[in-house]
Amino acid sequence: MTERNFNSDNVAPMAPEVLAALVAANRGTVPSYGADPYTERLTAVARAVFETDLAIFPLATGTAANAIALASCVPAYGAVYCADTAHINTDECGAPEFYAGGAKLFGLPTPDGRLRAAQLDAPLARAASGGIHHVRPSAVSVTQATEWGTVYAPGEVAALASVAHAHGMRLHMDGARLGNALAHLGCSPAEATWRAGVDVLSLGVTKNGAMAAEAVVCFDMALADEVEIRRKRAGHLWSKLRFVSAQLLACLDDGLWLRLAGQANRAAARLADGLRTLPGVTVVQPVEANEIFVVLPDALAAGLAAEGFGFHGWEAPQGVAGPVVRLVASYATADADVDALLAAARRYG
Amino acid sequence: MTERNFNSDNVAPMAPEVLAALVAANRGTVPSYGADPYTERLTAVARAVFETDLAIFPLATGTAANAIALASCVPAYGAVYCADTAHINTDECGAPEFYAGGAKLFGLPTPDGRLRAAQLDAPLARAASGGIHHVRPSAVSVTQATEWGTVYAPGEVAALASVAHAHGMRLHMDGARLGNALAHLGCSPAEATWRAGVDVLSLGVTKNGAMAAEAVVCFDMALADEVEIRRKRAGHLWSKLRFVSAQLLACLDDGLWLRLAGQANRAAARLADGLRTLPGVTVVQPVEANEIFVVLPDALAAGLAAEGFGFHGWEAPQGVAGPVVRLVASYATADADVDALLAAARRYG
Amino acid sequence: MTERNFNSDNVAPMAPEVLAALVAANRGTVPSYGADPYTERLTAVARAVFETDLAIFPLATGTAANAIALASCVPAYGAVYCADTAHINTDECGAPEFYAGGAKLFGLPTPDGRLRAAQLDAPLARAASGGIHHVRPSAVSVTQATEWGTVYAPGEVAALASVAHAHGMRLHMDGARLGNALAHLGCSPAEATWRAGVDVLSLGVTKNGAMAAEAVVCFDMALADEVEIRRKRAGHLWSKLRFVSAQLLACLDDGLWLRLAGQANRAAARLADGLRTLPGVTVVQPVEANEIFVVLPDALAAGLAAEGFGFHGWEAPQGVAGPVVRLVASYATADADVDALLAAARRYG
Amino acid sequence: MTERNFNSDNVAPMAPEVLAALVAANRGTVPSYGADPYTERLTAVARAVFETDLAIFPLATGTAANAIALASCVPAYGAVYCADTAHINTDECGAPEFYAGGAKLFGLPTPDGRLRAAQLDAPLARAASGGIHHVRPSAVSVTQATEWGTVYAPGEVAALASVAHAHGMRLHMDGARLGNALAHLGCSPAEATWRAGVDVLSLGVTKNGAMAAEAVVCFDMALADEVEIRRKRAGHLWSKLRFVSAQLLACLDDGLWLRLAGQANRAAARLADGLRTLPGVTVVQPVEANEIFVVLPDALAAGLAAEGFGFHGWEAPQGVAGPVVRLVASYATADADVDALLAAARRYG
Repeated sequence: MTERNFNSDNVAPMAPEVLAALVAANRGTVPSYGADPYTERLTAVARAVFETDLAIFPLATGTAANAIALASCVPAYGAVYCADTAHINTDECGAPEFYAGGAKLFGLPTPDGRLRAAQLDAPLARAASGGIHHVRPSAVSVTQATEWGTVYAPGEVAALASVAHAHGMRLHMDGARLGNALAHLGCSPAEATWRAGVDVLSLGVTKNGAMAAEAVVCFDMALADEVEIRRKRAGHLWSKLRFVSAQLLACLDDGLWLRLAGQANRAAARLADGLRTLPGVTVVQPVEANEIFVVLPDALAAGLAAEGFGFHGWEAPQGVAGPVVRLVASYATADADVDALLAAARRYG
Repeated sequence: MTERNFNSDNVAPMAPEVLAALVAANRGTVPSYGADPYTERLTAVARAVFETDLAIFPLATGTAANAIALASCVPAYGAVYCADTAHINTDECGAPEFYAGGAKLFGLPTPDGRLRAAQLDAPLARAASGGIHHVRPSAVSVTQATEWGTVYAPGEVAALASVAHAHGMRLHMDGARLGNALAHLGCSPAEATWRAGVDVLSLGVTKNGAMAAEAVVCFDMALADEVEIRRKRAGHLWSKLRFVSAQLLACLDDGLWLRLAGQANRAAARLADGLRTLPGVTVVQPVEANEIFVVLPDALAAGLAAEGFGFHGWEAPQGVAGPVVRLVASYATADADVDALLAAARRYG
Repeated sequence: MTERNFNSDNVAPMAPEVLAALVAANRGTVPSYGADPYTERLTAVARAVFETDLAIFPLATGTAANAIALASCVPAYGAVYCADTAHINTDECGAPEFYAGGAKLFGLPTPDGRLRAAQLDAPLARAASGGIHHVRPSAVSVTQATEWGTVYAPGEVAALASVAHAHGMRLHMDGARLGNALAHLGCSPAEATWRAGVDVLSLGVTKNGAMAAEAVVCFDMALADEVEIRRKRAGHLWSKLRFVSAQLLACLDDGLWLRLAGQANRAAARLADGLRTLPGVTVVQPVEANEIFVVLPDALAAGLAAEGFGFHGWEAPQGVAGPVVRLVASYATADADVDALLAAARRYG
Repeated sequence: MTERNFNSDNVAPMAPEVLAALVAANRGTVPSYGADPYTERLTAVARAVFETDLAIFPLATGTAANAIALASCVPAYGAVYCADTAHINTDECGAPEFYAGGAKLFGLPTPDGRLRAAQLDAPLARAASGGIHHVRPSAVSVTQATEWGTVYAPGEVAALASVAHAHGMRLHMDGARLGNALAHLGCSPAEATWRAGVDVLSLGVTKNGAMAAEAVVCFDMALADEVEIRRKRAGHLWSKLRFVSAQLLACLDDGLWLRLAGQANRAAARLADGLRTLPGVTVVQPVEANEIFVVLPDALAAGLAAEGFGFHGWEAPQGVAGPVVRLVASYATADADVDALLAAARRYG
């Protein structure tokens, strides 16, 4: 039986390697709250993977990682600039505002989820002219890969970082799908992050084969203390932290995260390539990671749904008419799963 | 080799049954964010275990459960009354204050961790006389079993609930070790909680054989909506929630949590019974759950530490002189582990 | 010497009647924190002015009035919908977000500062589809008169209220210049507020002849308790509250606020009428209250500034090119002041 | 007719000099939000009075001054140590917790409202041993004069500052009655504040003859930016700020605040001296400022109340039995007012 759930990459189970790591970590007593050997080794592995000094704080959800990372560099009276479609702006029920004590997010419109450096000019000028009456520009946040399934080139991130840093702001990257972006870019984790000016990263592997494993990665070590105490205060420091760290280790240790992400990306591309040959179907965003956005004729969408295929309706991007749906592939999406959907689509298309 | 780590019950790994449940849950896709069959079944099981209608919200840490439960019934300008030794007051880095938007905790002194109903009279009178200038009494919080390893009788909880409810306050129970308390009391979960007036419960099994599995249980269904949205907003709603629910199911389903807690309690009692026969050793709190607090002569404590036994120094309770240490047994503490410590203690005692 | 400061209506001193009221209130001891006869009488007067039962809470600033009013009906996880140019969204340094514990404001674009009821449809649909992941729609806020110097007709407010109430939201009115709006509309305070569906009002007279006197007016009495305790908690309950109440009484008691606002409106109209006859000058918003927005040729603006006339550059409204400035008249702006500016403008225009 | 209201010093009207200053400031337009000549001159005067560089931020209430001052040096996860009777801990409805984003106050017991340096040792040791699980020690707050009407010697403040600074904490002084303390001490404002290690001061003159005039005074200039933006964000930056600054100028300019405070202190001393001669009356705290606390026999208290004298019942200090009342003298309390109360007391005593 093929898998018909294309709702999200988070409907998938753990990859076998991650489960094996959990089982292996379940031996004997270890110190709690992160003073265990798994968490210790994670720091070393992360430094090797990112080729730099850093502090890494494991936790269980991407929303927490984003909110804690932002709160570490945004005061209560601060402003965060991001794409209006950013997960932090639309899908976290105000978590960044909560963690940062009432900070304000400015969601800027984009065609494809990627913020452009020049978009910051007008809001920064407005902030400057507002003076004490305006919240203070404190961070820029980018999502990599974006919520539209597109990927920033490192130079685009660097351009944003340059503006951010020139205005005393930090650059945050929501890397819930960083593995998918790296699999697309083919560049090193370092090139995509701190070498491009990222100060603090939400590193996620939950969508990419783990159970619940994310981390705040501080490239700017001045943020580490804030992240550590805010993680605890928010109830995001596990007593048995070894079990988050073990998942991250399983993913990062030998490149598993990139292999899993590559498989998800290939499945998404296969799906997009198949769908775009059908009449009335338009792929409305570049397919660079593991999500695809397509205009589907109503009859086709209804037919797929009737056969049990799962996917979500989505708000159309700027300038697109017609009903858009999102389909997401995961590391566990097999060619056969994609082909089964395409076969059904051809019957209705 | 025996296990020498008596620092906490959270240094232990998962019980085999919990691990098995995680492995079993790792099959195929399921809807995310709690719309999965594990979470659905958990609600049914919890209702059966507690013999009442309720809403249950799984999450990963006890600090989060407490903070979200309290925030659901305490406004930003509210007051919470608890023992001054309560975990929420001393060990959560201000999480309840954070989640409740700046609410105030009043920690009241107790000899043994158990708040008495009569202790509420004076602070409630002070609040009433302060009027608009005083934060508003909103909740009473008790820990079961307490941070001193003692256990409230249901009637004692009911007396607190009675005062709380008469003043428009909710009664919260931090049940991070509720299983240990039930194993001691021999009463039903219902008798220890909602029948005694508990409105909202933090139910924990992490310290009792799970990996990371707690839940906010709303007996007062009016609180459920607040708990649900605050859990999401805090980043405590897992996308792959099945893996928290599966742990809770494994514990609750057939009484595993009570069996594991019983074993931990027995190990603690064995330890206390052995230690109190040694010269200079005083057990300074009733041993009713899985924690023991003892005055240890310095040489004895140093000797145990030198042999690799792990335990924490602790602040002495009211009226006790001398250096106190805490030792904690877990479900995984074997008789042999206890006996090895006692044997070493006899050499130094 | 004429007055050349058109920067804002808050550069003006107190009206003589308000000062006289302050002096008159400065007699003997009275109970503090609002239990004084001035505050008591204010409630009666406000009920008469608004022709309904209500609760009124005096305080010193409009930002505080807005933030407290919104916090009384918006939970920390709530959403507020307003014009993107709303004072609460642009000029209060995030005060509503602070007071409401991290709530989120959605600033919607408008041509003239007036929110249209139909604009709420799309964001409300988005909120509904987002479910637990989206902040919860809790309030709509309108400014009367708007930040563009325009005025809502009561029917327009009622249309917004209708949508708000149908979705369980409250309607808040920022009435920092309510007097100016009433002077323009010629309707009663009741018609412009609660009869049009306003639940809670920020009533301001500071810009209209007082020293520092605003109030949160609860037409929905269910909000009164929250407003009262939040005012105290924010440090906005004066111990010598008689001195705020006395100002409000002076303004409301015999219609002084409407007379002063009428004078300010007339001065603004005279100014606009004069300026729009000059070459290159365009009045870019309807002049319905006491603020005017005009495109001024650079030489004209520079000339006025060189002669000591004060006004602020402003961001152009949608679809307007060219440098816009704002000029504000107050109750104290005399015809001679306006004419002096116009005379100078003719020399440079 | 003599004045019989001894409830508080905030029941009094403005001193004539302060009212005169308000009237005088009510001329013409001036720039808003603090860019006016009154506020500018206030900075110069404050620097002269305190004999040092400083930043001063006027606002209207003491609760706001305290909360903003503390929020400028206490992170959301921070701890403040103060006397358990401190106004910030008992009478501000949680304002410091609100402003600081959920920080925690530790109220320590004292016999007379004065915190002793040695009292900090135990809680600081507890914080250190709690590590990441404990809120972080961030500030010590003292009230001068205290809530028990006593006064810290500069050396006592310096001892607290020394401990605070050694632990990376700031020292805050709630100077709502600083004038009364200075009138008692006879030392300079500098000696009582920054020379004794005070980093940030809430300077109040409302209780001492003003209408509503307080200020946050930053001796540690690194705090000034936080204070400024938090004042705005809380709605405590008046648009017509000249009217707060003018009050402060009237008080500080030629020592008026010290003369008014001296008069209040003398009236309180006269009252205490008279009462303590009566049978059954015990003055239970040293009378060093303008508040007195006495055990009054029930018949005496009832008799005074029946004749219209106003005062508040008060919680007894440590070790005192019997019903305690507080009587407060203000700058406006005349000898005849005191003598009238004493005469009545003799009839009932």
